Amino acid sequence: MLTFNEYLASVRPTIEQALRSAVSATTETAPQRLVEAMRYAVLAPGKRVRAALVLLACEACRGDEKAALPAACAVELIHTYSLVHDDLPAMDNDTLRRGQPTCHIKFDEATAILVGDALIPAAFELLLANIQPSDVALRCCSDLAKTAGATQLVGGQADDIYYEKNLTRLPTSGAEEFLTSIHLRKTAALLAHSLRLGAYVAGASKEQVEVLAHFGINLGLAFQITDDLLDVTSSAETLGKSVGKDAKADKLTYPALHGVVASQQKALALIEDAKEMLIAAPELFAEGPREVLGSLADFILLRKK
Amino acid sequence: MLTFNEYLASVRPTIEQALRSAVSATTETAPQRLVEAMRYAVLAPGKRVRAALVLLACEACRGDEKAALPAACAVELIHTYSLVHDDLPAMDNDTLRRGQPTCHIKFDEATAILVGDALIPAAFELLLANIQPSDVALRCCSDLAKTAGATQLVGGQADDIYYEKNLTRLPTSGAEEFLTSIHLRKTAALLAHSLRLGAYVAGASKEQVEVLAHFGINLGLAFQITDDLLDVTSSAETLGKSVGKDAKADKLTYPALHGVVASQQKALALIEDAKEMLIAAPELFAEGPREVLGSLADFILLRKK
Repeated sequence: MLTFNEYLASVRPTIEQALRSAVSATTETAPQRLVEAMRYAVLAPGKRVRAALVLLACEACRGDEKAALPAACAVELIHTYSLVHDDLPAMDNDTLRRGQPTCHIKFDEATAILVGDALIPAAFELLLANIQPSDVALRCCSDLAKTAGATQLVGGQADDIYYEKNLTRLPTSGAEEFLTSIHLRKTAALLAHSLRLGAYVAGASKEQVEVLAHFGINLGLAFQITDDLLDVTSSAETLGKSVGKDAKADKLTYPALHGVVASQQKALALIEDAKEMLIAAPELFAEGPREVLGSLADFILLRKK
Repeated sequence: MLTFNEYLASVRPTIEQALRSAVSATTETAPQRLVEAMRYAVLAPGKRVRAALVLLACEACRGDEKAALPAACAVELIHTYSLVHDDLPAMDNDTLRRGQPTCHIKFDEATAILVGDALIPAAFELLLANIQPSDVALRCCSDLAKTAGATQLVGGQADDIYYEKNLTRLPTSGAEEFLTSIHLRKTAALLAHSLRLGAYVAGASKEQVEVLAHFGINLGLAFQITDDLLDVTSSAETLGKSVGKDAKADKLTYPALHGVVASQQKALALIEDAKEMLIAAPELFAEGPREVLGSLADFILLRKK
C-alpha cells in the first residue's frame, strides 16, 4: 500500500506540469508581469494536498484520475488566490509563504490583488474547457462558485480578519463554536470541495459524494488545528512561513483556547473519525485510493510543515 | 420609439430588485458585515448600463428579456467587483464612487478586497443557478471566465496600473495603441460580453452575436474616451466621483494624448460606426430594441456622468 507521501510524490510531477499548462492556457496575451506573478504564486513549492484529494477521490470512486486533473488544477488556483489575498497587508500582512516572499512583497500590492482576481475566473475556465460531459462541468462549477463565495471561503476569511482586527482578547463564551465555523469555511470547505470534484468527475453516487465530503470536513478541521499548532511549535525555516504570529496577534486558535495537548487530542479525534467513515462502508470505494486517503489523514496529524 | 434613458428608467426597478435578490441568494449565512458591504457596493446608485445591454441584446435577438435577468445581474456583480478593487489604495486609491464613499472608505480595506473576491463566484453562481438550458449556462460561464480573466478585465487593469505607477511621462511612440488595448480590455470587453450574454440567452445566431459584440467594442472605446473627457470637463458633484485626477496623475488618456476636441471627434466616429453596424443588417435584430441600442450609442456620447 502507498502512503500519502508516496502517492503525493508519484502524482506531484503530473500536477505541477498540469498547473504550468493551466496558467499558460488562461493567460494567453495577458500582460507579462501579471503572468509572471501568477506563475510565481501558483508554482511556488506547495504540497498540492488539495489537488491530490481531487485525484484520489476520483480514483476512490473508480473514475479515471486523468479526467480529474483539470479539476485538481482549478482547486489549486483557488487555494493559491486565497493565500495571495490573505497575505496582503490589509489582511494577514504576511511576508513569507511557501518558503519565499509573498506575492505582494516579490511584486507589489496591486499585482497581488490582480493575481487573485485573475485566478478565480481561471479556475472556472479550466473546469468549463476541460471537464466532460458538460453536466459534470456544470456541477463542478456550481460547487466551486458556492465554495469560493461569501458563505464559505470568503465568509470564513471575513470573520477571521474581523475578529483579529476588532477583538484584542479571546472571547469568554462561544469562542470554540466561532473558531470551528471559521475553520469550516476557510479550510474544511475547500478540502471537502476537492473531494466532491473528484467524485463528480468519476460519476459518483450521492452516498459516495457525501461520505467523501464528510471525510474532507474532518480533515479540514484537523488540518487547521495542526496548522495553528505548527505556528506554536515549529520554526520559520521548517515551515516556510512566519511562526509565532498567532500568539503575538492574540489570534483565536485552538492552542490559544485549549493549549497544545488538548489541541493535539482534538485533531487526533477528528482524524480517527475521518478514517472510520471510509472503513464503515468498504464497498463504496476502491481499496487502494481509500487506503491512501486514510494515510493522508495520518499525514495531516504528523506533518511538520 | 424609446430613448435609451427611457428604456433604462423602465427596466431599472426590475434590475435593482433582481440585484437585491442576487446578493441575498449568494450570501445566505454569510457574515453580516460582509453582506452589508456587498449590498453597499452592488446597490449603490449605478446607471446599470451593462445590465440593460444584456436585456436589450436578448430582446434584439427576439429572446425573452426576463430569462436574461440573471445574466444582467451577473455582469453588474462583475462590474461592481472591478470598481471596488480598482478603487483600493494599492490601485487607483479613490475615495468617491457613485456619489458615495468607496467601499474601503465606508468599511475597510480588507472588507473591500473580500467584497470583490465574493462577487466573482457570485456572478458564476447566478448564471449556473438560473440560466436555462444548461448549454447556454455553460456558454455564458465560459465567456464570463475569459472576460473577467487575465487576458481581458484583469490584464487591462494590470497594464493600466503598471503604466500609471511606473511611467511618469506620456510615452512618445505606441501610446495610442497601448491606450486602446487597455480600453479594449478594461471597458469594451465587459460591454461586448454583456451583449453576448443577452444574445446567448436568446439563442442567437453566430452572426447576431458577432455584430452585437463588435457594436459593444465600439461602444466601450467611446465610453472610455467620454469617461476620460468627463474627468477633464465635469465636476465631482455632477459626476459622483473625483475629477481632475487623470491630469494630476499624468495618466495616459485620449484627452492627454490628443486634446479634448480630437477626443470628442474620435468618440463620435466610434459611435457612428457602431450605429452603422446595427443598421447594416436590419433583418438581424428586432426593430424596437435595435433603436434603443442606437439611442444608447448617442447617450454615451452625450452623457454628463
